[in-house]
Amino acid sequence: MRQIPVALTIAGSDSGGGAGIQADLKTFTVLGVYGMSAITAITVQNTVGVRDALVLEPELVAAQIDAVLEDIGCDAAKTGMLGTAQVVRAVADRVAAHEVRNLVVDPVMVAKSGDRLLAEDASSALVADLLPLARVVTPNLPEAEALLGHEIAEDAMEDAAREICALGCRAVVLKGGHGGGDEAIDLFFDAETERIERMSAPRYDTRNTHGTGCTFASAITAHLAKGLDLRNAVAMGKRFVTEAIRRGLPLGSGHGPTDHIGAGRLF
Amino acid sequence: MRQIPVALTIAGSDSGGGAGIQADLKTFTVLGVYGMSAITAITVQNTVGVRDALVLEPELVAAQIDAVLEDIGCDAAKTGMLGTAQVVRAVADRVAAHEVRNLVVDPVMVAKSGDRLLAEDASSALVADLLPLARVVTPNLPEAEALLGHEIAEDAMEDAAREICALGCRAVVLKGGHGGGDEAIDLFFDAETERIERMSAPRYDTRNTHGTGCTFASAITAHLAKGLDLRNAVAMGKRFVTEAIRRGLPLGSGHGPTDHIGAGRLF
Repeated sequence: MRQIPVALTIAGSDSGGGAGIQADLKTFTVLGVYGMSAITAITVQNTVGVRDALVLEPELVAAQIDAVLEDIGCDAAKTGMLGTAQVVRAVADRVAAHEVRNLVVDPVMVAKSGDRLLAEDASSALVADLLPLARVVTPNLPEAEALLGHEIAEDAMEDAAREICALGCRAVVLKGGHGGGDEAIDLFFDAETERIERMSAPRYDTRNTHGTGCTFASAITAHLAKGLDLRNAVAMGKRFVTEAIRRGLPLGSGHGPTDHIGAGRLF
Repeated sequence: MRQIPVALTIAGSDSGGGAGIQADLKTFTVLGVYGMSAITAITVQNTVGVRDALVLEPELVAAQIDAVLEDIGCDAAKTGMLGTAQVVRAVADRVAAHEVRNLVVDPVMVAKSGDRLLAEDASSALVADLLPLARVVTPNLPEAEALLGHEIAEDAMEDAAREICALGCRAVVLKGGHGGGDEAIDLFFDAETERIERMSAPRYDTRNTHGTGCTFASAITAHLAKGLDLRNAVAMGKRFVTEAIRRGLPLGSGHGPTDHIGAGRLF
C-alpha cells in the first residue's frame, strides 16, 4: 500500500508548459498524485506553435517506462503524443509487459496550433496495438475520425463511440469540444457496463485552451490513480478541465495555457 | 503585468519524477508559479540510479529557451543538469541574450545515486560562462569543491562562499547537507550586500532525499518569481525543502523522492 497514489505519463515535452508531460505533471500534482514521466519527444513549442520536434528512439522511451515501473510501479498511466508508429509499438509492448491497469490513451495527433504530432502511418499502430490495452480512450472529433477512417456526422456521436470501442478498447470519451454550440458536450461510453452518458459543461469564450486535451486525460488518470471508478474519474476530469479552461491564462501571444493551479483548488 | 508569476527550468528530465524538471515543475506548481521547461537531457532514472542519459544537442536546448522566452518571458529561471560544456555555453548564451533576471544556478554534477551528470570538462565552462549570469548559485560541498578546484575544510565554509562569489556570481548558498551533525546548515552569502547568514534546519533521518538539490533551487526560483528578495527567497526555499524532506516519500527501493505536494501545503 503506497502512501500516495502514483501516475505515469508517457508523452511529449511541451517547453511552454501548457501541454504534454508538463500539463500532466501539473495536473497530477494539484490533484495530490505523485507523477512520473516517460518522454517520447522534445517539442520546441510555445503558445503560437511547434517550431521543432525531436521524437526519441523507441528504445529510450521503453527504457524510461521500464526504469520507473520496475522500481516504483503505478496506479494509473496515460499516453499522449507518441510521434511515430515505432514509439506506439514500443509503448504498447512495455505497457502490456508491466500489466499497467487504468491506462488512459489520449490519441494526440495534432497540436492546438495545427502542427502534426503523430506520423500519418502511426494511426493504425495506435488502433491495433495500443487501444486494446486502454481502459479508456479520449479522442476529440477529428481524432475519432482519424481512428475510424471516416467522418462523423454531428448526430452520429453515439454510433461513433460504439464503433471506437469495437476497435478493441473498453471505453471512450468522445470529446465534442471542437464542435459548435453553447455547451461543450462529451459522450462517455463504457462498453463493459454498456453505460452511455452525455457530459456537458459551459463553453467559455477564450483562446487560452492550449493543452486542454492533455489536461482532461491527465485529470481522468489522476482520479483513476486515486481509486475512483471510470465514470466518476471522467466526470471529475471534465469538471477539472472545465475549470482550468474557465480560468485560462493569457500568457504568450497565441493560445495561452489552461490554469491547472487554479483548477486544483476545486478539489 | 502577468496574472501569474512565471518561471523557467533549464535542466534534465528525471523519469522517476523526484528530481530534474519534474521536481522543478512540481515545486513551481505547488508554490503558485506557472512553470516552463527547456530540457537538456533525458535520463532513464529511478530511485536506485541513472540507467542511461541522452544529452540533447545544444541547438535544441537553445531553441526551447528561445521559444518560451520570446513568447511568454519569465520572472525567474533556474539551471540544473546541463550535461556537457557545449550545453553550458548554449544556455549561458541564450540566458544572456534574453537578459534573464533572477537566474538560480544549481551546479548539478552528480546524482544522489552517485551517477555523474556533468562531463568533467564542463566545470570550467560553468564557472566562466554561467556563474557571472547568476543571481545566486547553490552548490553542495562536493560541487563547491569542484567549482573551486580544492577541498573545503569544515570550518572554512565562509571563506569558500566568498571565494565562489569571487568567481563572478553575486551570491551563493553553500549547502552543508552532505556534512555531519544534527542540523543541516547552509551558508548564505550575498556579495552585493555583504550579508552572510547561517541557515539551519533539523536533519531528518531519512533515505528519501532524491531530488533535494533541485527542489531547494526551484523553491528559491519560485519565490524570486513571486517577487521576494533573494535572502527571503532562500529562507523560504530552505523551509520548503526541509518540509519536503521531512515528509519524504518511501517510493521505490532506493532513495525515494521528497514530498513536493505536502511541502506546498505550508505556503
